[in-house]
Amino acid sequence: MGSWTRPSCKCCISKAVQPLVALELIEDINMETKRWLMTRLQAEKIVGGAELMVHPGEDDDGNMLLVSASQHVLLRAAEVVGLYKLYKDGSMIAFSYRDSRNFQNSDNINEFLTLAERQFIVLRTLENIKAVDEKYIPGYPTETLYPGEAIFNRLQKSKILHTFYPLHDEQILCKLGARWHSYRNLSLQPIDSIYSYFGGSVAMYFSFLEFFTCSLMPIAVFGTAVVLLSMDTIDKCILFSVFNMIWSTVVMELWKRHSSVLSYTWGTMQMNSQFEEPRVDYKGSMGINPITHRYQPYYPAWRRKLKIWCVSVPVLCLFLSFSLFGMYVFFRMEALVKTYYSENDGCWACALYLPSILHTLYVTGMNSLYKMVAEVLTEWENHRLESSYQNHLTIKVLVFRFVNCFAALFYISLYLQDLELLRKKLASLLVLTQIINQLIEALVPYLYKTIMRKGAGLKKTTMENTPDIDKIKLQGEMSSFPGMFDEYMELFVQFGYVSLFSCIYPLTAILIMVNNVTEIRMDAMKLCHLFRKPFISPAANIGVWQTAFEMIGFLSVISNCFLISISPQVEGYCAENNITPKNVLIWTVGIEHALLAIKIILAFAIPDVPQWVKLRIERVEYQSLQALKHKLAEANKDDSKEMVAKETLSDGTTGFNSTESSLYTSKKQLNLL
Amino acid sequence: MGSWTRPSCKCCISKAVQPLVALELIEDINMETKRWLMTRLQAEKIVGGAELMVHPGEDDDGNMLLVSASQHVLLRAAEVVGLYKLYKDGSMIAFSYRDSRNFQNSDNINEFLTLAERQFIVLRTLENIKAVDEKYIPGYPTETLYPGEAIFNRLQKSKILHTFYPLHDEQILCKLGARWHSYRNLSLQPIDSIYSYFGGSVAMYFSFLEFFTCSLMPIAVFGTAVVLLSMDTIDKCILFSVFNMIWSTVVMELWKRHSSVLSYTWGTMQMNSQFEEPRVDYKGSMGINPITHRYQPYYPAWRRKLKIWCVSVPVLCLFLSFSLFGMYVFFRMEALVKTYYSENDGCWACALYLPSILHTLYVTGMNSLYKMVAEVLTEWENHRLESSYQNHLTIKVLVFRFVNCFAALFYISLYLQDLELLRKKLASLLVLTQIINQLIEALVPYLYKTIMRKGAGLKKTTMENTPDIDKIKLQGEMSSFPGMFDEYMELFVQFGYVSLFSCIYPLTAILIMVNNVTEIRMDAMKLCHLFRKPFISPAANIGVWQTAFEMIGFLSVISNCFLISISPQVEGYCAENNITPKNVLIWTVGIEHALLAIKIILAFAIPDVPQWVKLRIERVEYQSLQALKHKLAEANKDDSKEMVAKETLSDGTTGFNSTESSLYTSKKQLNLL
Repeated sequence: MGSWTRPSCKCCISKAVQPLVALELIEDINMETKRWLMTRLQAEKIVGGAELMVHPGEDDDGNMLLVSASQHVLLRAAEVVGLYKLYKDGSMIAFSYRDSRNFQNSDNINEFLTLAERQFIVLRTLENIKAVDEKYIPGYPTETLYPGEAIFNRLQKSKILHTFYPLHDEQILCKLGARWHSYRNLSLQPIDSIYSYFGGSVAMYFSFLEFFTCSLMPIAVFGTAVVLLSMDTIDKCILFSVFNMIWSTVVMELWKRHSSVLSYTWGTMQMNSQFEEPRVDYKGSMGINPITHRYQPYYPAWRRKLKIWCVSVPVLCLFLSFSLFGMYVFFRMEALVKTYYSENDGCWACALYLPSILHTLYVTGMNSLYKMVAEVLTEWENHRLESSYQNHLTIKVLVFRFVNCFAALFYISLYLQDLELLRKKLASLLVLTQIINQLIEALVPYLYKTIMRKGAGLKKTTMENTPDIDKIKLQGEMSSFPGMFDEYMELFVQFGYVSLFSCIYPLTAILIMVNNVTEIRMDAMKLCHLFRKPFISPAANIGVWQTAFEMIGFLSVISNCFLISISPQVEGYCAENNITPKNVLIWTVGIEHALLAIKIILAFAIPDVPQWVKLRIERVEYQSLQALKHKLAEANKDDSKEMVAKETLSDGTTGFNSTESSLYTSKKQLNLL
Repeated sequence: MGSWTRPSCKCCISKAVQPLVALELIEDINMETKRWLMTRLQAEKIVGGAELMVHPGEDDDGNMLLVSASQHVLLRAAEVVGLYKLYKDGSMIAFSYRDSRNFQNSDNINEFLTLAERQFIVLRTLENIKAVDEKYIPGYPTETLYPGEAIFNRLQKSKILHTFYPLHDEQILCKLGARWHSYRNLSLQPIDSIYSYFGGSVAMYFSFLEFFTCSLMPIAVFGTAVVLLSMDTIDKCILFSVFNMIWSTVVMELWKRHSSVLSYTWGTMQMNSQFEEPRVDYKGSMGINPITHRYQPYYPAWRRKLKIWCVSVPVLCLFLSFSLFGMYVFFRMEALVKTYYSENDGCWACALYLPSILHTLYVTGMNSLYKMVAEVLTEWENHRLESSYQNHLTIKVLVFRFVNCFAALFYISLYLQDLELLRKKLASLLVLTQIINQLIEALVPYLYKTIMRKGAGLKKTTMENTPDIDKIKLQGEMSSFPGMFDEYMELFVQFGYVSLFSCIYPLTAILIMVNNVTEIRMDAMKLCHLFRKPFISPAANIGVWQTAFEMIGFLSVISNCFLISISPQVEGYCAENNITPKNVLIWTVGIEHALLAIKIILAFAIPDVPQWVKLRIERVEYQSLQALKHKLAEANKDDSKEMVAKETLSDGTTGFNSTESSLYTSKKQLNLL
């Protein structure tokens, strides 16, 4: 490549350093820019660098950069990021670099920080590189930089950085796969290994999937018993429904406890991500940020709120009304077709399916259209943090999908009050899901093997020469991980079927359980082999989904009470015992309110965090308070004696020692925290 | 008093020191004990003392001790207690003694710390005096002490300390009274002055009382208009009710915002009282506390929970059933008496009131009995902290009182469905409250004046000789402040009348407003002149009452929807338009659920903390994080350079500097906090 000196690359000396993240620049990258970027990545912290290790990939003029980090950089960044780690006394405390030898396992970096954590740390370090005195990106004079702007965001925005992704570790992945998505293995998933390889929110999802599937067991047994032993009497049905309603609350509360244990042992529970970097697409007029007092893009919160309440919510309502109108048209069309069919019978049998097909197409179209609109809207709302963006997008799409999935069922149950139709619809939906899932499931391994064979063919020829860089390029060619939304949505709909219409179709739970056993393996397979490895930030819980599932729990009380009150069995019973419909309704409403109250009390009575976790956290808090008190007392001992002597009691002008010593600043910080 | 040397009493030298707290020991106090107590109060921190100033009152062998504290002791304790104060840049941050000159007003202790705060600090300091090497209380060999036991708690338990109370400041009190409870003054209350004189929870109560009264304005205007302009039509009534239901949520949310502003400016919002001292009556077998790892009385949380759920809740239910049974008997008796009266008319007119009188007596009796039982139960539940004890007691009594107050009204409305009777009952309850309140209100100043005259007569003769100690003794003779429970309960019942039955009797709000204008002045008068000054801990909000008021808001939706659906106007309308009762009920339930949903959404949509407060808090958090990062970077600069040189890249055994310097410990603490 000629004139420029190749930056010293530490990883060339030692072969053992594992590249953590790959950066793919644009194809025709200006070499001045690449050189500048590598310098900035490798420079020391004091001059604004990231102190990372960079390898320019295949050769110097390629568009690939492999990034890794030395042990001390990783550990120091772990402190800045605020990771919690296991201390020698068995409690989880925020990692401190100075004190690192007192943390368990801290001498072996590959065990101490998981692969996902190391990659996350590198990501954060990259995001934190700020422009120092560059006025523009070297090599691209049109791409201006303001002082303190995050370089990495800027490179992405100006499309100079094509993409970047964490790298797989074939060896670990292979071992993990055997224990995780192999069909020979029927034990529980290796959640902790998933956490260390993929990171917080992925492990959280799989743990939730497993927990949810297991928790369906009692409902499945009860439901199957109701059907098989044909205990289809009114009292059994009511018993089953009430059990189901209480169950949904208990399960979500137990999950909260379980997830808090997980996040405590992972050290993600107490992490504070408040001062995250803004998202890449965060815009704002340059102004004084009221929190940091820095001159940077700033967007006031009230304008975001205005946008949400005055535009996003009305747009959601508009789309909902389209969707409901579509449903109305569908039911009308179906009725029309049926009458037409019964009048001129025989000839147009397939036309019977036309409304259903049209409606399905319409709903699918609306779903994708709305998802695009929601993405544009949430982008336009201009959230500062990635997490806040994700939450708002999730809520928007979630509400719409929920209505699309359940509107027809609610229409059948509440308006038509046709329980037989509801039962048929539910059964067809569940069986359809099953079949589609099994199909996809058969397809995925097939596709995977095809790709593998291609890859293997490609690989075999080049294996000896440049094996690593080729594997990495293969990874780059995979599509990027689309996020957990669709997986959670699937669970959410399942939970809706189980909870909302349990009394109508008690077999739901067992069908879903069977489905989920394969679902776990399929999702795992996809994540391991079909997508690029994602950057996953540490997660302390399942976020908005917890609320969404709890909401379903409350809705289920309303729907189940209503469905039971209009069931033919209850109507028969009332006719026998001379109970007027009005009284039935009063009873229904009374029981509904009582059940809601019980659910709320249960949710309060079951603590969200198990006692032992609470005790450990309080113990650490207590210790730190004691340490602080001790330190203050030590610091004050000398000068307080001095002061007592000096003090004149009521003049109020006691001279305070005001030397700006480092101890003084330290104490101020201690108080602020 | 003879042989023992009088401890040096700094306040005798300087007359300007104001005594803050009075301790009253038992009459025949052993002089050895008194001497020991005074020594411990005055001794330096290093030898386990409190560094307070003590004056032995009238003369050495009296049973009175006056306690005060010097400026530096107050300021240092303010740091330990964790008070938040106004910093020079206008934000509220945790007070730091070392940094005190950068806090606004810190040169004048009487302005910097309010009277209530100073007294609270002295209380905390007293409670924190621990036994060092005493095996028993000197002078009382039977009263053993364990090492580290809080002496003050022990003295109270063994009844050696008769009582202790903070002292009034006549001058400030006089000024405060003129601006507060004088009838000539119609402006708003001087809440900040109340806060500085009485302290957090008192000021919070009066602020809430005022806020609640003001917020009744729209309801009062609307309600009066409905009655006066006889817009008693169905649509107006429904409109009024819906407005009322939304109003109750908005008011409680606005109050949350208002109270968070108050607590932010008072510096109580972010105070952490987690490591409070245990209550005086906290019992437990000696064991290792899992949090502090100290050998001290410890009572496991699960046993407390077991007691609550297995005894306290069933006892509450038992009492509730007694109460409901009493109500049932009352209604039966009333019906009997009425039939009897109509059969043999005229002769026993006054017997008509007999059931009411008996029932009132029964309810009053049950109320006091249950309060006693609740106190015993809560005591027996053995709560570690005073705040937790108070909360549990409040919830218990609150639920019982609520049922007692509203059961009859619910019976009339839900079961009898007799709206005319309900209206009469409500009117009589409200008017009765008015009359009783006005009576008491006339009585209170009268009583106060009588006491004053007596006191003045007594005072005049001794004014010249020992004015201060006499005034203090007079304060000690007053009854102690009974707490806010009854005051809040009164507001709670008012809120219930306004919210739950608004559609029946729209005049409720205006009657309550008139009542509260006098109520404020009466409560203020009582607090200033009838009771001993209470120790008030800093309060960030109104605690469980917030939840209780919000619950009423939700109940109000249920009751109002039901009441409207059974009103004769609606029935008439339905009869005209041929709507079946079943459909009316379905509509009612639908609207009820929609209103509940709107209330929940409103409660989420209105932020609990105003934006400016949130920004300021985040600004301080950001600053402290930056300070921490800066400090860490400074500390690491030297040794990181060293390390880069030393580091061998992949062996993973980089030597960490592990000198146990003070900086090292300080950094560990920084992370723990």
